[in-house]
Amino acid sequence: MNLSHQNHHLISEIDRKGLYKVIFSRRDVRGQFRPDPIPDHVISRILYAAHHAPSVGFMQPWNFIIIRSKSVRKQIHDVFKQANQEASEMFPKQKRKMYSSLKLEGILESPLNICLTCDREKTGPVVIGRTHIKEMDTYSSVCAIQNLWLAARAEGLGVGWVSVFNEKKVKEILEIPDHVVLIGYLCIGRVTHFYQKPELETAGWLPRLPLEELIYFDKWDKNGQNENSSLLNQVRKDLHFPEYSIQED
Amino acid sequence: MNLSHQNHHLISEIDRKGLYKVIFSRRDVRGQFRPDPIPDHVISRILYAAHHAPSVGFMQPWNFIIIRSKSVRKQIHDVFKQANQEASEMFPKQKRKMYSSLKLEGILESPLNICLTCDREKTGPVVIGRTHIKEMDTYSSVCAIQNLWLAARAEGLGVGWVSVFNEKKVKEILEIPDHVVLIGYLCIGRVTHFYQKPELETAGWLPRLPLEELIYFDKWDKNGQNENSSLLNQVRKDLHFPEYSIQED
Repeated sequence: MNLSHQNHHLISEIDRKGLYKVIFSRRDVRGQFRPDPIPDHVISRILYAAHHAPSVGFMQPWNFIIIRSKSVRKQIHDVFKQANQEASEMFPKQKRKMYSSLKLEGILESPLNICLTCDREKTGPVVIGRTHIKEMDTYSSVCAIQNLWLAARAEGLGVGWVSVFNEKKVKEILEIPDHVVLIGYLCIGRVTHFYQKPELETAGWLPRLPLEELIYFDKWDKNGQNENSSLLNQVRKDLHFPEYSIQED
Repeated sequence: MNLSHQNHHLISEIDRKGLYKVIFSRRDVRGQFRPDPIPDHVISRILYAAHHAPSVGFMQPWNFIIIRSKSVRKQIHDVFKQANQEASEMFPKQKRKMYSSLKLEGILESPLNICLTCDREKTGPVVIGRTHIKEMDTYSSVCAIQNLWLAARAEGLGVGWVSVFNEKKVKEILEIPDHVVLIGYLCIGRVTHFYQKPELETAGWLPRLPLEELIYFDKWDKNGQNENSSLLNQVRKDLHFPEYSIQED
């Protein structure tokens, strides 16, 4: 048996704890950015983490536009401001004031913005695994964002995903071609602190949903009976697993 | 200053190494599943990892359909087989034989399938951060999949994302309502081994792209000049960072 291309590396309990700590302490950061520049060797590592995301048919459809120019960030920020004004008017009156009080981006305060894209034509018209579900390529680019986000958290960097803007206008500023989809616009930088919980949860906008209510068995809306109740009991028992995971040793 | 809701936990170098090891050793598994059932406490942990993904407007739009029933899996497998036949005919003749030789799913061999969805109506018509880009909710569910995938790898479990099927037919089998999007159909289980590299890379289907070619500065297609060359030099220098990260200590 040829073992040379097999990976026998076990993930240790220590590695696993590290992963869970990063997953549960990752936050969407908007307001706690510090302006210190990020060293190249750190940017390089988080880009490698993104580049090793899963991709349908091994397409690797992503590109990374590194935006450090103040004038480009200023243009993007103007596009955000206009959209944010439009957005606030979409909410019912009683939520409008709270919406306007929320800080939703750190485009100018963070030292680094990254626009992550998806080139839908990268590997030709037919892609393994994308013959029937066309969104699979954009989903691959989203997986790259999540890898980058976790790597950034592990490097002590905050990331905020900005999504309140007219996509066409941002694509014009960044000169992104029509066949390329803008997947995520990320603000990245060192932070003064990370919050214990998501800001929208703390602000009372929406509560964390109980995991057990999100689980079905074998069909939509089918709750656990008998043979499935042990998993639901376990999920209830693990309610505080995320908090335990980020506690100091 | 009220510190009670702030998270001062530092991620240690050991935690960070654990994360990178998991990110770089994660694989899309199709053919190496073992039939051993997965303990409830492990399923619970990977579901919590998914549930703590970022979500636009704190929507948490995901549900998890846990599929262990053999008859349901058999129905899904039939839908896959039909689509896979259709898919093979879409490729140019010279790639068709190779396509047919690739194993693209482990629906029946893996002991656990999870269908992860996105309920687009979960929190009402207007969602913070989704006022202008409507795909943000489906992207949130994709982030949940990536978290689950990494957690599974850290637990020693392989995950394979199956995407070759008629979505409407699978939704019918699982009785998923119209307004809910099927985001990912995952096969999960213990494995005989993980491959060192993605199977499509090893098979010569497509090569790993050099990261440096995917990086632009401030605009699409703009390569690094002067002030940006140090980052590109660093990226070249870190070419083997992913391999180093998964080496045994």
